[in-house]
Amino acid sequence: MLRNALRAGNVQNRKSYLYLSVRHTSATPKRRSKVLTTETMHPLVRHMEYAVRGALPMRAEALSKQLATDKSLGFERVVFCNIGNPQQLNQKPITFFRQVASLCENPELLKPSNRETVLKLYPADAIARAELLLKHIGSVGAYSHSKGIHHIRENVAKFIEKRDGYPADPEHIFLTQGASAGVHTVIQILTQNHKSGFLIPIPQYPLYSATLALVDATQVPYYLNESKDWGLEVHDLKKAVDKARDNGADMRALVIINPGNPTGQCLSIENMRDIIEFCHNERLVLLADEVYQTNIYKPQSRPFHSFKQVLSSMGDKYNDQELFSFHSISKGMIGECGRRGGYVECVNIDDKVMDQLYKIASVSLCPNVQGQILVDLMTNPPVSGDESYPQYQEEVDAIYQSLIRRSTKLASCFNSLEGMTCNEAEGAMYLFPQLTLPQKAIAAAKEKGMAPDTYYCMSMLEATGVCVIPGSGFGQVPNTWHFRSTFLPEEHLFDTFCTDLEKFHKNFMAKHKD
Amino acid sequence: MLRNALRAGNVQNRKSYLYLSVRHTSATPKRRSKVLTTETMHPLVRHMEYAVRGALPMRAEALSKQLATDKSLGFERVVFCNIGNPQQLNQKPITFFRQVASLCENPELLKPSNRETVLKLYPADAIARAELLLKHIGSVGAYSHSKGIHHIRENVAKFIEKRDGYPADPEHIFLTQGASAGVHTVIQILTQNHKSGFLIPIPQYPLYSATLALVDATQVPYYLNESKDWGLEVHDLKKAVDKARDNGADMRALVIINPGNPTGQCLSIENMRDIIEFCHNERLVLLADEVYQTNIYKPQSRPFHSFKQVLSSMGDKYNDQELFSFHSISKGMIGECGRRGGYVECVNIDDKVMDQLYKIASVSLCPNVQGQILVDLMTNPPVSGDESYPQYQEEVDAIYQSLIRRSTKLASCFNSLEGMTCNEAEGAMYLFPQLTLPQKAIAAAKEKGMAPDTYYCMSMLEATGVCVIPGSGFGQVPNTWHFRSTFLPEEHLFDTFCTDLEKFHKNFMAKHKD
Repeated sequence: MLRNALRAGNVQNRKSYLYLSVRHTSATPKRRSKVLTTETMHPLVRHMEYAVRGALPMRAEALSKQLATDKSLGFERVVFCNIGNPQQLNQKPITFFRQVASLCENPELLKPSNRETVLKLYPADAIARAELLLKHIGSVGAYSHSKGIHHIRENVAKFIEKRDGYPADPEHIFLTQGASAGVHTVIQILTQNHKSGFLIPIPQYPLYSATLALVDATQVPYYLNESKDWGLEVHDLKKAVDKARDNGADMRALVIINPGNPTGQCLSIENMRDIIEFCHNERLVLLADEVYQTNIYKPQSRPFHSFKQVLSSMGDKYNDQELFSFHSISKGMIGECGRRGGYVECVNIDDKVMDQLYKIASVSLCPNVQGQILVDLMTNPPVSGDESYPQYQEEVDAIYQSLIRRSTKLASCFNSLEGMTCNEAEGAMYLFPQLTLPQKAIAAAKEKGMAPDTYYCMSMLEATGVCVIPGSGFGQVPNTWHFRSTFLPEEHLFDTFCTDLEKFHKNFMAKHKD
Repeated sequence: MLRNALRAGNVQNRKSYLYLSVRHTSATPKRRSKVLTTETMHPLVRHMEYAVRGALPMRAEALSKQLATDKSLGFERVVFCNIGNPQQLNQKPITFFRQVASLCENPELLKPSNRETVLKLYPADAIARAELLLKHIGSVGAYSHSKGIHHIRENVAKFIEKRDGYPADPEHIFLTQGASAGVHTVIQILTQNHKSGFLIPIPQYPLYSATLALVDATQVPYYLNESKDWGLEVHDLKKAVDKARDNGADMRALVIINPGNPTGQCLSIENMRDIIEFCHNERLVLLADEVYQTNIYKPQSRPFHSFKQVLSSMGDKYNDQELFSFHSISKGMIGECGRRGGYVECVNIDDKVMDQLYKIASVSLCPNVQGQILVDLMTNPPVSGDESYPQYQEEVDAIYQSLIRRSTKLASCFNSLEGMTCNEAEGAMYLFPQLTLPQKAIAAAKEKGMAPDTYYCMSMLEATGVCVIPGSGFGQVPNTWHFRSTFLPEEHLFDTFCTDLEKFHKNFMAKHKD
């Protein structure tokens, strides 16, 4: 400021120079550095990355705001394919679930004096379920038990028993604020020091890398094999563990995402047995992220099996294998992401460790009760014979069939494009196509200081309004380029969505033709 | 097992001895140690303590279960006074809030075809509010912006402006899963290493000590002065900071809980100015836990002022003083603890630090949307002229007046007892009486391996079913003994509650008379 004033010839004499100088000095204390800056903050937080909500989504958000007043962008809306968030893209919630949740919110509706009116709006089984839940909960506005409402944990245990054919104990189940919160707590407790090592898949859902960065644990990547439908090979796990141990890691756990995110593969039962045996031999706790367990698109050839089930089927030798299994209300045909609900089942976990998990849970008091209610409904939905069953089944089927159609359509679209190959989704909500980019595109990216896949995704966003996430956010084999897209845009808009992507891709490839 | 078999004379020859021995050996691998034990887990988690849900509440939970089948305990129910959880003790939720929340849950109710029926159950302003919220939210089942829904943050900013008379920026507001989650994130980001020091009050709400233990920061206690209504003296803060610095601490922040928990005091505006000046001189970020800001029981002599307001009133010199102010839907007259909602306002915080806070928030995706909706309703309730205003105001007033009556009654009860003195509550939901215990009680506690206040509280629980928390869970001057009790039991049961406590106390003192 002073220098500008001098340059502009505004300083006519020494006095005014001094005046300016004094002003400058007296202003200084106001601009003293902050106590809390990116230099003085927690270094692990600074170094953590989280691409699913990184540069692309932030630009998408800005464009979305801009669209409110500016119609010149060349697209009418931003399509958020960066995150599995079905209801953001207008997937209708399951009616029965919302009916029960709204009755629990407003117990006035359950008063006998309102029954006649309420029966015009609600089926009797939704009313009965809400009454049953409130009997056990009291009020959705009260803190619950820090592990979650006991009645709901009992229902979760029954669900697991029915799914797997093996017993489950409500005391080994913790309800959580989404699977993410459960994963965070388990990774935290497993981290004894910075040498504590965790095998994580590459590509991976960045919750894992972000959480490991935050607790300062050692990330030990293992690659999924793209040419074998993103399969997992145990000898690769073994190599990764041996190498990490040579480098001083104290290997603690193996993270498996099944069905895969972002890769969509679904493990075979034989593969799962090998993985469990590997963990058992290597003394690794198994973290099974099974949040996509009902998003299964090739149920004949690739049905879902839980790790709990496969472990339980392997006999006494393995009955000390420690396993945490995570589930969520955010995925499947439910998609109730915004409620933040889920659970973790602790299998063969030391009782005293579960006491410690309970202690951690108690510091955040309890998972939110409406999230817990949805866990109850997910694990204990209407059954054949119930008044609400036909509608429930119809809604679930419609979403499921539509997801299959959309996943197939998007994979075909990607595979039809020059320089793009894409495995079909066996499960989950994503495709993770590989891009072979022309040298000119790679050079253009470099010029903009971006990774080539980031440049491609940013170009797509600017041209079409479609927000996807570059492969670098998930990890990929060096010098390969990918992106992750959900296949969640609404079905009646899906052809347009595919056409927009095709058109963009062709333009991009033409523009950067070598 | 083998030794017993030998003793019992069951081993008739070497072969059967070997057989037993082999069985023993073959069983060993099944019982090999777990990978994850309390010895191998995260040491900071192991060392963390959290008394509000510690030994007392766990015993209370066990007694509560026992009561279901066993009527011989001498009391009919467990009364949970260990935690500020009003709706657990049957405080009725605010009707308008629940109406809006339930309409947002079940948007089918908002269809024109249902309007006539719905108007029999809901006032028009609740319907209008739900429609407005859903217009901005989309679906409560979708992940929102990680900082929270923008429309709701705008309402929070307006609320703060109206409360304080100074501007607030929605971009500086983060909605959180209860105040606890906000406190955790802010403490985490402020912790550069284990030398990072935080001044915390003694007695304190153990969220602070637990979180600081978990992030491995340095706790620097300062005492509140019981003989001066739990007042805070700046020269004590100064002494504590100087001493901590001498010991190598890098002092970062001062935590103030106002109104106090567990101590119930409400700071004067003069005291707050001194505290801000102290923080400014000492380069400390101020963490203001203001969740009890509407629980003010002596509004004439001790009105609530926010730290944001007082800071803003102090002029330009202080406009670089960094402040985080926390608020919650769990307290006040609302008591919606189970929903997990709250916010933190960042005042004079570096923009790049707020970007980092946004990044952390994005890893857990978003605060639950129903919690966010309640933040909207808390900060933007019905106003005079609205259809729902009279009922809203009546409900809030009834709870407020009842809290004043109950707090006064419980303080009188405590002060009438031999060996007990208790400051009246100026705010919050708790009393923190001091106990002078006979030597025999102290000896009896020692014999049981308990602190004297724990022994007193455990005896109270076993005799009356009333669960309170010993002072050692909050911190207290060495060799003084206290406990924290809420004054939340229902008013129609309150006389019985007081009588039970009196009777217990007299018996306890008679039993342990020196």
